[in-house]
Amino acid sequence: LKKEKSRNMEVCFSPANFPYYQNKEQSVIVIVDILRATTAICTAFEHGVAKIIPVATLEETYLYKESGFLIAGERDGKVIEGANFGNSPFNFMGEAVYNKTIVITTTNGTQAIEMAKNCSEIVIGSFLNLNALCNYLIKVNKNVLVLCAGWKNRFNLEDSIFAGAIAEILHKEADYSLDCDSAMASLDLWKIAKKNILDYIEKSSHRHRLKKLGLDDVLEYCFTPNITTTIPIYKDNFFVEISKLS
Amino acid sequence: LKKEKSRNMEVCFSPANFPYYQNKEQSVIVIVDILRATTAICTAFEHGVAKIIPVATLEETYLYKESGFLIAGERDGKVIEGANFGNSPFNFMGEAVYNKTIVITTTNGTQAIEMAKNCSEIVIGSFLNLNALCNYLIKVNKNVLVLCAGWKNRFNLEDSIFAGAIAEILHKEADYSLDCDSAMASLDLWKIAKKNILDYIEKSSHRHRLKKLGLDDVLEYCFTPNITTTIPIYKDNFFVEISKLS
Repeated sequence: LKKEKSRNMEVCFSPANFPYYQNKEQSVIVIVDILRATTAICTAFEHGVAKIIPVATLEETYLYKESGFLIAGERDGKVIEGANFGNSPFNFMGEAVYNKTIVITTTNGTQAIEMAKNCSEIVIGSFLNLNALCNYLIKVNKNVLVLCAGWKNRFNLEDSIFAGAIAEILHKEADYSLDCDSAMASLDLWKIAKKNILDYIEKSSHRHRLKKLGLDDVLEYCFTPNITTTIPIYKDNFFVEISKLS
Repeated sequence: LKKEKSRNMEVCFSPANFPYYQNKEQSVIVIVDILRATTAICTAFEHGVAKIIPVATLEETYLYKESGFLIAGERDGKVIEGANFGNSPFNFMGEAVYNKTIVITTTNGTQAIEMAKNCSEIVIGSFLNLNALCNYLIKVNKNVLVLCAGWKNRFNLEDSIFAGAIAEILHKEADYSLDCDSAMASLDLWKIAKKNILDYIEKSSHRHRLKKLGLDDVLEYCFTPNITTTIPIYKDNFFVEISKLS
């Protein structure tokens, strides 16, 4: 009897490390930017946004604006000039997003998406869609590579513990191997963090940054699991709800 | 009374992230490649080597050999052709190294050194010189940036837990702040790992690689703290024992 080849999960802690992962084409890439790009994107799809177009540069963002698109964007935690949306995931709710197409650029999240653009399958992950995402990953039956947006090409805690939350589910529920030191580290960090996520994130340097910017009100929301079952998936140059994928 | 500015410690998980650290010039850079470059370098200095010249490329290494230098080197865990030393730290002991100058190139360690070359102060860290290194760092009273060699520009567990061991000492003994998510993660991982380091490293993908290469005999040695008080420091283009720094 031939033993079934087990699926593997890897974690990449920042876009700077992404070029050094060899199995991208055999993997589903999960983009993670908990504070706040991927949390905002999941929120927007839960509220019926039609498309999200991620762009890496401000220049490109403003070209879209000139063509009449709604734009959302942030650099170093501050809303970019001329944006139609504030910086908080709470802005991506209701009428403001329903059936709309939104162009988005952020310090870290959209840079991570840019790095992964040529991979064959890219989905968006956040605590908001954790279980739905993991069920989907298990169903498609491929290797998984979680790409953390990090902070300016450095490791950050919030994205890494979320990678650990995925690792825990895939490993426990579907026997994925974690043949990758960063996947194992993520899982260990998640096991510590999950006892009290907000306390743990309190330690994070990124949180101090958020505090300075007065954005404490989004923290609890960003770490709340399973608010939505939406899975944003990349197709051509935009994200769409997976159920609407033609 | 003006509050004394506290010193900070940062950790960089791989050479690929190093360009994104801003405070390199105000910091002592600690290069870490536990399996095995920095363990071997500490061993050589404990045994009286005169100089270690780290080089990044094979080409450069062979140019040194043609000029009559002793060379040591490894790529992907295997000894390079024509090397005067085997791959194990045990080869860097006794007569073979005493008063000699050795040129060394490795897959990860010397690449990390190459990245840091232009920084004003670079030292070598391994479990072998942990306490001596931390005492020195506290004495020089600067910020500390630990550069993990990692594995081919990816995170690895053994270098990261060692960074956590440094973080624990600097934070506890000298009140360094850990205003860096990767420093905090290292410390958390170290707190798990230190209960039984070899068991913990058993998990590491790098260990599986070592196992395949039949190098299990060096593991215990590489994780033994405080075998030596030597501190190799970079000067011009080579490492020298800090006490011999003119």
